[in-house]
Amino acid sequence: MNNYSRRRFLSRAGLAAISVPSFSQGYKLDDLNKLNQEDLTSANISKWDLDTPALCVDLDALEGNLASLQKVVKQNGIASRPHAKTHKCPQIARLQLASGSVGICVAKISEAEVMFEHGINQLLCTTTNVTPVKIERAMNLRKWCPEFIQATDSPANARLLSAAAIAKGIVADIVVDVDPGMHRTGITPGEPALALAQLVDQLPGLRLRGILCYDGGSQHVKGFEARKKQTLERLAPAVETIRLMKKSGLNTEIFSGGGTGTYNIDHENEGFTDVQVGSYVFMDNQYVAIGGENDTERYTDFTPSLTILTTVLNDQYEGRVTTDAGAKACTINQPWPLVKGESGMEYRSGSDEFGTLTYENPSRTYRVGDKIELIVSHCDPVVNLYNQIYAIRDEKVEAIWKIAGRGLSQ
Amino acid sequence: MNNYSRRRFLSRAGLAAISVPSFSQGYKLDDLNKLNQEDLTSANISKWDLDTPALCVDLDALEGNLASLQKVVKQNGIASRPHAKTHKCPQIARLQLASGSVGICVAKISEAEVMFEHGINQLLCTTTNVTPVKIERAMNLRKWCPEFIQATDSPANARLLSAAAIAKGIVADIVVDVDPGMHRTGITPGEPALALAQLVDQLPGLRLRGILCYDGGSQHVKGFEARKKQTLERLAPAVETIRLMKKSGLNTEIFSGGGTGTYNIDHENEGFTDVQVGSYVFMDNQYVAIGGENDTERYTDFTPSLTILTTVLNDQYEGRVTTDAGAKACTINQPWPLVKGESGMEYRSGSDEFGTLTYENPSRTYRVGDKIELIVSHCDPVVNLYNQIYAIRDEKVEAIWKIAGRGLSQ
Repeated sequence: MNNYSRRRFLSRAGLAAISVPSFSQGYKLDDLNKLNQEDLTSANISKWDLDTPALCVDLDALEGNLASLQKVVKQNGIASRPHAKTHKCPQIARLQLASGSVGICVAKISEAEVMFEHGINQLLCTTTNVTPVKIERAMNLRKWCPEFIQATDSPANARLLSAAAIAKGIVADIVVDVDPGMHRTGITPGEPALALAQLVDQLPGLRLRGILCYDGGSQHVKGFEARKKQTLERLAPAVETIRLMKKSGLNTEIFSGGGTGTYNIDHENEGFTDVQVGSYVFMDNQYVAIGGENDTERYTDFTPSLTILTTVLNDQYEGRVTTDAGAKACTINQPWPLVKGESGMEYRSGSDEFGTLTYENPSRTYRVGDKIELIVSHCDPVVNLYNQIYAIRDEKVEAIWKIAGRGLSQ
Repeated sequence: MNNYSRRRFLSRAGLAAISVPSFSQGYKLDDLNKLNQEDLTSANISKWDLDTPALCVDLDALEGNLASLQKVVKQNGIASRPHAKTHKCPQIARLQLASGSVGICVAKISEAEVMFEHGINQLLCTTTNVTPVKIERAMNLRKWCPEFIQATDSPANARLLSAAAIAKGIVADIVVDVDPGMHRTGITPGEPALALAQLVDQLPGLRLRGILCYDGGSQHVKGFEARKKQTLERLAPAVETIRLMKKSGLNTEIFSGGGTGTYNIDHENEGFTDVQVGSYVFMDNQYVAIGGENDTERYTDFTPSLTILTTVLNDQYEGRVTTDAGAKACTINQPWPLVKGESGMEYRSGSDEFGTLTYENPSRTYRVGDKIELIVSHCDPVVNLYNQIYAIRDEKVEAIWKIAGRGLSQ
């Protein structure tokens, strides 16, 4: 019926000239995405003028986190190989490599592909690929990206990888994934892991590079000493595996593991080479709550850099407002998001479309149209909801980064 | 360094011929997306060959749900105006309209825009837009889409809408959003709502169409009688508002509200016109658990049609397997996803990247590479994680639908 109107709507949307510096009523995402970097810079857009919900990263905090991590791991004689599952963003991976990281981890082969397509070469896929289509993809990526390393956690899988590599005419780099006792992924440490490492070493299509052992279950243990005790105990069998591998003359150049919760503990494992930190770039309320070496209540080694901007939609009832950032913008992870810089408030994102801010003893109140900045609960799944992230410096939009790996869970 | 390799990787990926019918080792999403509908149909692809995690909808179940809903609301003398916040998919909106629905609701103006761009005209935005940029977008959409209706819940907002409509040279269709007592959105029923309706009626840029009153808090009340009692009590002030509006000679042609949990109750509200059902198309474990009119334990009015396919990655420990569908593929909503057609199993998607299936008294066990089909916990936020949905009939892929509204929370 009104296909003519629809075409005009679409063509207008496409052709609209964006009078950026003079338009102070807020910015629609689609319009901002049309700007080139030069125009974006000269537009000097305040983050408070962004349409909401909007995912933002504070560049000063992000860069500070990269530097802090590198300083500590360097002091401890190890390296970092940050996990892109957290940010899914090639620009951030590039900053990590520039800060001194030796490589980038990915959780899914589709993440590895998109990182390579965006110029990242030093990739390690920490998840074993078990289906023919994913094994084919991993070995195809290895063919074009010589620095790609693939994990495996069973002899049957190693044999499939070797056959696929031979079919591609390559010798693929492999690490053995060792189970830290969570029984989630990885082969049992000790003799089973040693036997798998020997098999990888012998298979004609594979080249053994070492092991990984990710102790995800220890990352959020509250209290530095409790966390240290648990993760060192859990990693001990992997350390023993490395000893057995060395004794057998196998390559142990990579012993990767750990995360943001144990990055300053992992080097105590003999032979450990690099931490697979993810959340350190953004931090989040779940990590703040675990406490650090110097502050038992708050983990202050890194600064929260990732926030969600949201707008108040309804304020008619005392003691509460409704916002436009619910579960689809914040997830339902807990502790709930925190209002940045405010006290005496509680935010809940349990409803799909709406957030609720209640006041107990507020430092201020909010009215319809006001914008609120939230520190996220759990960064990884929040990032996975957004197509782009606004890179902010001094409250201004410095860049818009595509979250190229968003939704790539395959 | 290896930009040459990257270019070749990319050009190969782009040019790869897809030997669909003969390739039985599974399908990569990107390859399937390159097929036109004719090739997809002739390829006769089994859903079990899809790369995972994959979001699927069973078309027989979906079509059955559309028909069941329409039959009941027709019997009850009302209409349906399904909510696209659930599926975010223009193809499903089209099926809903074809099944007899009078319109499509959206929660965000960005969802309305994308639905209109994909050919849907009969749109109602249930959320009040409060910022200048969103008011401008809503009135711009109304300019090109004469059937677009916008909600408002405050006199200040109505005045802004009227001014924006006048600036566009239009008279915009408006419903007053009335609070059912949740205090989330909507104006207080009774005199405040009446006064707002009168204002909308008088403002030169607006045309009053009626009210909406969405009682979200009653949709998941367990037990049909308890649910009925609660929602009729909560809607009573909105019914009184409609009476006051009629007495004042105002237009009450729309009295929209309700959802999948109350679709067979809402018609008992005097003057009620249409249900904003969302989840009925997919159903999910949260809705199954509320019980129905005939079965107090299970809500069987609609059939679960939405599933996630996942692959077993690790089976080395007794009584459990690890899969590739965690929180980023399933969300962390509870009750947890259910394994379709199996008993004595518990699935958990609490980990970002991995799912865990534990066996208590299993009907069968699973091994590495096996695929598992999960009935989703809460359909809306799960759909919002995926870029496309596989439309399945008799276990075959009949179509691939883009979730065009995915991530559009603005």
